Amino acid sequence: MRIAIDAMGGDHAPKEIVLGAMKAIEHFDQLHLTLIGDENAMKPYLKSNNRVDIIHTTEKITSEDEPVKAVRRKKNASMVLMANEVKTGRADACISAGNTGALMSAGLFIVGRIKGIDRPALSPTLPTVDGDGFLLLDVGANVDAKPQHLQQYALMGSIYMEKVRQVEKPRVGLLNVGTEKGKGNDLTKKAFDLMQDLPIQFVGNVEARDLLNGVADVVVTDGFSGNIALKTVEGTALTMFSMIKEVFTTNTKTKLAALLAKNDMKGIKSKLDYSEYGGAALFGLAAPVVKAHGSSNQQAIFSAIQQTVQIVEKEVITKIEAEVQQLQANNEEE
Amino acid sequence: MRIAIDAMGGDHAPKEIVLGAMKAIEHFDQLHLTLIGDENAMKPYLKSNNRVDIIHTTEKITSEDEPVKAVRRKKNASMVLMANEVKTGRADACISAGNTGALMSAGLFIVGRIKGIDRPALSPTLPTVDGDGFLLLDVGANVDAKPQHLQQYALMGSIYMEKVRQVEKPRVGLLNVGTEKGKGNDLTKKAFDLMQDLPIQFVGNVEARDLLNGVADVVVTDGFSGNIALKTVEGTALTMFSMIKEVFTTNTKTKLAALLAKNDMKGIKSKLDYSEYGGAALFGLAAPVVKAHGSSNQQAIFSAIQQTVQIVEKEVITKIEAEVQQLQANNEEE
Repeated sequence: MRIAIDAMGGDHAPKEIVLGAMKAIEHFDQLHLTLIGDENAMKPYLKSNNRVDIIHTTEKITSEDEPVKAVRRKKNASMVLMANEVKTGRADACISAGNTGALMSAGLFIVGRIKGIDRPALSPTLPTVDGDGFLLLDVGANVDAKPQHLQQYALMGSIYMEKVRQVEKPRVGLLNVGTEKGKGNDLTKKAFDLMQDLPIQFVGNVEARDLLNGVADVVVTDGFSGNIALKTVEGTALTMFSMIKEVFTTNTKTKLAALLAKNDMKGIKSKLDYSEYGGAALFGLAAPVVKAHGSSNQQAIFSAIQQTVQIVEKEVITKIEAEVQQLQANNEEE
Repeated sequence: MRIAIDAMGGDHAPKEIVLGAMKAIEHFDQLHLTLIGDENAMKPYLKSNNRVDIIHTTEKITSEDEPVKAVRRKKNASMVLMANEVKTGRADACISAGNTGALMSAGLFIVGRIKGIDRPALSPTLPTVDGDGFLLLDVGANVDAKPQHLQQYALMGSIYMEKVRQVEKPRVGLLNVGTEKGKGNDLTKKAFDLMQDLPIQFVGNVEARDLLNGVADVVVTDGFSGNIALKTVEGTALTMFSMIKEVFTTNTKTKLAALLAKNDMKGIKSKLDYSEYGGAALFGLAAPVVKAHGSSNQQAIFSAIQQTVQIVEKEVITKIEAEVQQLQANNEEE
């Protein structure tokens, strides 16, 4: 198995990307990696290994680049060359911590979609109180979703959770404004009916209030609402951490409290840190394309590689292809 | 001024509703109240006052009732009679802590809309770190919003923040998946253009991540996304509080920490408690209709009454009517 990695994407590239890759190559015997980026900048962190190839390039896509244009024009950008490795079959999968929009464009235009999937979905795992996490899709690949897109997300999410995260019969919920059937906007009302037809464990509507309690293993929504939910979780958690920090520096009493509770409070932070759950896969593409968090350190990159290895090993894409064909056949019969 | 109050709505009705009303009648010299509900159940908490009238009824709408049906069929429900008081002009405004959907239906079918407003918006004030709060609209009155609805929300929200919360030139933002112009789905792209035409301080797109930091005084969105944002804030905060509580009971050290920091930590909770900012008005109706939080205690009811008094005193509805007429005239000219 070979995974292509964009060594120049993310806030701590190439250092943390390369260090994470080196950790993974030691851990996985059968893994081959292709690191794409500025060889001189990578060199300090590289260990010589015959399972690691380098493709040298100095061009890269930045977080300020306009996604579609950047992918079309910067033909030698590390992210574009990475996607090319997958397209030509030289790599089985790819990972980048760079510009999310550009990665979605590179996925669509270079790697291409699975036949029968209209739109890929960006699918991060979010934290839950019990530590299991849940898959939320889509969080922004497709902001004008149609009911059949949500149906496809449900199918893809369920397959991933079952195959890779080994959840038996994953509970798939539809994000909505109320739990009763019949609630919601036009989109969710129609998607509800379509999701009932799938060979999955559909648990109906779920409310945003219950997401972190683990109300479902997979939560399906359109890219606009999913993005709002994801960023609201992030923003609320960050705000509360900064409020707690303020409390802990208020006076001598609270400073002492901070010292006493420090280590245990850190546990909350890491529980809510969703980079620990790996990257966000772009399901619906013809090969695994994984977005690592922009602020990824080497541990987060290692997690993303581990996750990608599992997506390849468990043949998630082949399974999605088969199920989508079946779904289409059923729809045509009706 | 007379305000009609549904004494039977909410988790702690009628006790906390009546006690909150008694507090308000003492506080505001010019205020008259009509309390609608079961007189026997209210009696223990009522103080005799010639500015308080009672309308006795034993029928009520519960949180399980299907909103539209309940309002149509339960002709003598406290909430329906409350809305009738406003419709007939006997009251200037009304407040209920009961079934939100039913209150929206009662607002629409009994109180009626302002001419030129297509859909009313449910508009709570959410907390910000600096304690000022921001108005979020809509959070679920209209889950299939059109661009012109969002334009009207922007206008109404700006007027409320300026008149009642005395924010000079309120900053009005559009909730979106990115801050750059051109981001978003069809709805937000079109709404962005319409909002630029308004006589308000439009600050462009705002991201969900920045809401609690006070990125804008008014945040406009469709009812579906607004509901997701609101409930995600609630859910994330509750989850974190329960995690903190768990940490504080882990061992002797953290239990001691809890004792030391307890009072200051409570400050965080009250800062994030948005019932302290008053109720959520349904802007776009022909009179002020205010939804108090379902879990309202007497203090929250007092806040909701205070807020309603201000909406009436500052003639917010008249101002909305005038601005909407102006907007329509401009649109016709073009």
